[in-house]
Amino acid sequence: MRVLTGKSSREIRAVWFEGGKVRMIDQRLLPQRFRVIDLGDHLQVAECIRNMTVRGAPSIGAAAAYGMALAAVNDEDLGKAADTLRSTRPTAYDLFYAIDHMLRSLELGDDPVEAADMYADQIIERCRLIGKYGAALIDEEARIMTHCNAGALATVDIGTALAPIRTAWTEGRHIFVYVSETRPRLQGMKLTAWELYNEGIPHAIIPDGASAHFMREGVDIVIVGADRITANGDFANKIGTLDKAILANTFGIPFYVCAPLSTFDFSLTSGEQIVIEDRAEEEVTMMGRTRLAPKGSAALNPSFDMTPAKYVTGFITEAGVLLPSEIEKVRKFRLEEAGLP
Amino acid sequence: MRVLTGKSSREIRAVWFEGGKVRMIDQRLLPQRFRVIDLGDHLQVAECIRNMTVRGAPSIGAAAAYGMALAAVNDEDLGKAADTLRSTRPTAYDLFYAIDHMLRSLELGDDPVEAADMYADQIIERCRLIGKYGAALIDEEARIMTHCNAGALATVDIGTALAPIRTAWTEGRHIFVYVSETRPRLQGMKLTAWELYNEGIPHAIIPDGASAHFMREGVDIVIVGADRITANGDFANKIGTLDKAILANTFGIPFYVCAPLSTFDFSLTSGEQIVIEDRAEEEVTMMGRTRLAPKGSAALNPSFDMTPAKYVTGFITEAGVLLPSEIEKVRKFRLEEAGLP
Repeated sequence: MRVLTGKSSREIRAVWFEGGKVRMIDQRLLPQRFRVIDLGDHLQVAECIRNMTVRGAPSIGAAAAYGMALAAVNDEDLGKAADTLRSTRPTAYDLFYAIDHMLRSLELGDDPVEAADMYADQIIERCRLIGKYGAALIDEEARIMTHCNAGALATVDIGTALAPIRTAWTEGRHIFVYVSETRPRLQGMKLTAWELYNEGIPHAIIPDGASAHFMREGVDIVIVGADRITANGDFANKIGTLDKAILANTFGIPFYVCAPLSTFDFSLTSGEQIVIEDRAEEEVTMMGRTRLAPKGSAALNPSFDMTPAKYVTGFITEAGVLLPSEIEKVRKFRLEEAGLP
Repeated sequence: MRVLTGKSSREIRAVWFEGGKVRMIDQRLLPQRFRVIDLGDHLQVAECIRNMTVRGAPSIGAAAAYGMALAAVNDEDLGKAADTLRSTRPTAYDLFYAIDHMLRSLELGDDPVEAADMYADQIIERCRLIGKYGAALIDEEARIMTHCNAGALATVDIGTALAPIRTAWTEGRHIFVYVSETRPRLQGMKLTAWELYNEGIPHAIIPDGASAHFMREGVDIVIVGADRITANGDFANKIGTLDKAILANTFGIPFYVCAPLSTFDFSLTSGEQIVIEDRAEEEVTMMGRTRLAPKGSAALNPSFDMTPAKYVTGFITEAGVLLPSEIEKVRKFRLEEAGLP
């Protein structure tokens, strides 16, 4: 991704391995401060996944892969390291996928850092393809709505939901992006807007509750990411996604979900089985150190919601655009990739 | 409304007249600070309407009525005072209704303060009736969702959307209220939660984007207020209301709009004609003095949205519960009230 620093710009990834350490952008400080931090062991990586220094399902997967690489390099117990990393966040499937992938690679004797790099490179290549297939769905002068951050920060580079947007922009289309701010942590306002600003893509931040208003005024396409997609096409994504899916359906606006195939979890047959993470109520009731809510009032803070497949126009993946009814294809694709019958 | 101050509690209105001054709760400071301010002329009242020291359509109406009373007491030009007060906020119909009402009363030679008091008392009596009719729709153990603040703060006392909730609670029903935080100004989190806390009514604050999630989990009734209702039953209310109306419709949850008859504007035949106020983008991009958004990103901040009549289960008014198709009755009621044929 391009990051404007002072008068120049530089290309950077959300997470990578360099000089024997895992390096990542501290996403909690954006957009006010741009800082890269260094992590020397897998426990630090686990903590950074847990406290959302790194977030977004594919970036979490890559961070976990690099965490496993660090554990291998540092000669730690790999089973224990895997358990520690697995325990950090419950909803994103990529986390578990990445750890299992690394355990298999390390068992086969692959170089730990090379294996993790390959995993991260693969994510980016998948995002590039998601961008290519998705951009074909974006018309000239399209008004696009997105939610949360399914951008380069969330996927090592390029993004899932932002991939078609970046690609359409690069191809010269005059698009406009409504960035839903995404309470409580404001990843839309803080991260997606920051990425779009860095790339020069026209956009405006809107409160989450203004989604219906702007859809009524005219939105051409809604594009979001996904944290976990089940075999029937239901999916979990940032809280507020279900609202947008239903609203888009009501207004007849195409609703697309961008995700690499690694986000599909065939062990679950429906979204009802997805574990939804409840996070601390202070994310809602506090802003920094300032309490916003009355001292006697509690808040509920589910981090994700589950959108039924019936609201999805299509899943934009590295294997093309799939209808919910075509998800079975993904399973075959994944089995082939794994060399299984 | 009941306000807990230290270990005791006191009964207070949102706005009233006392000692030759207009007094009001400074709603911008809640819930952290409870402060009552005194205003000596109608210009100060106008400023307090504009800067949202007082907000909520009926409270704005009452404040404007008291502002007109002050102008009369201070021997100001009433036409000019009316123009100044009218120019403060464009969307709420009560503002214009109250000013016209006061102009007529003053022309008839009524005592200015008594006329404004009577106007405020009438609002409260209407809220009491809205509470009575609305509470009949709330079942034992009902899970209720509301948005923004259509409480005592917004209506001098009791509230519109909160009136049925207060009444059901007083009648002994074990209800639970989901308070949608209502970005950008957080009137749900800051004001509605504060009112419910003061009354001891069980509730939890939720991000606006969690509305669909909790409706899917189980909400029995959605109750909101309205800033302006047009002849066909369309209505304007705080941004995010349209989202909830569509979501409630999708999940088969009854969606009620509470408003005194003064909120019905028969000069408009449909919601398309309602002027929607756009407020400063800093309400979205800043929190206090802290900028949340990237410095290169703008925000859009429509303060209201328009919900079509088809999503309304019923309007809860002081004249009973009306279907959108029954609004014509209101017009007759209003004409009778005015002594017109």
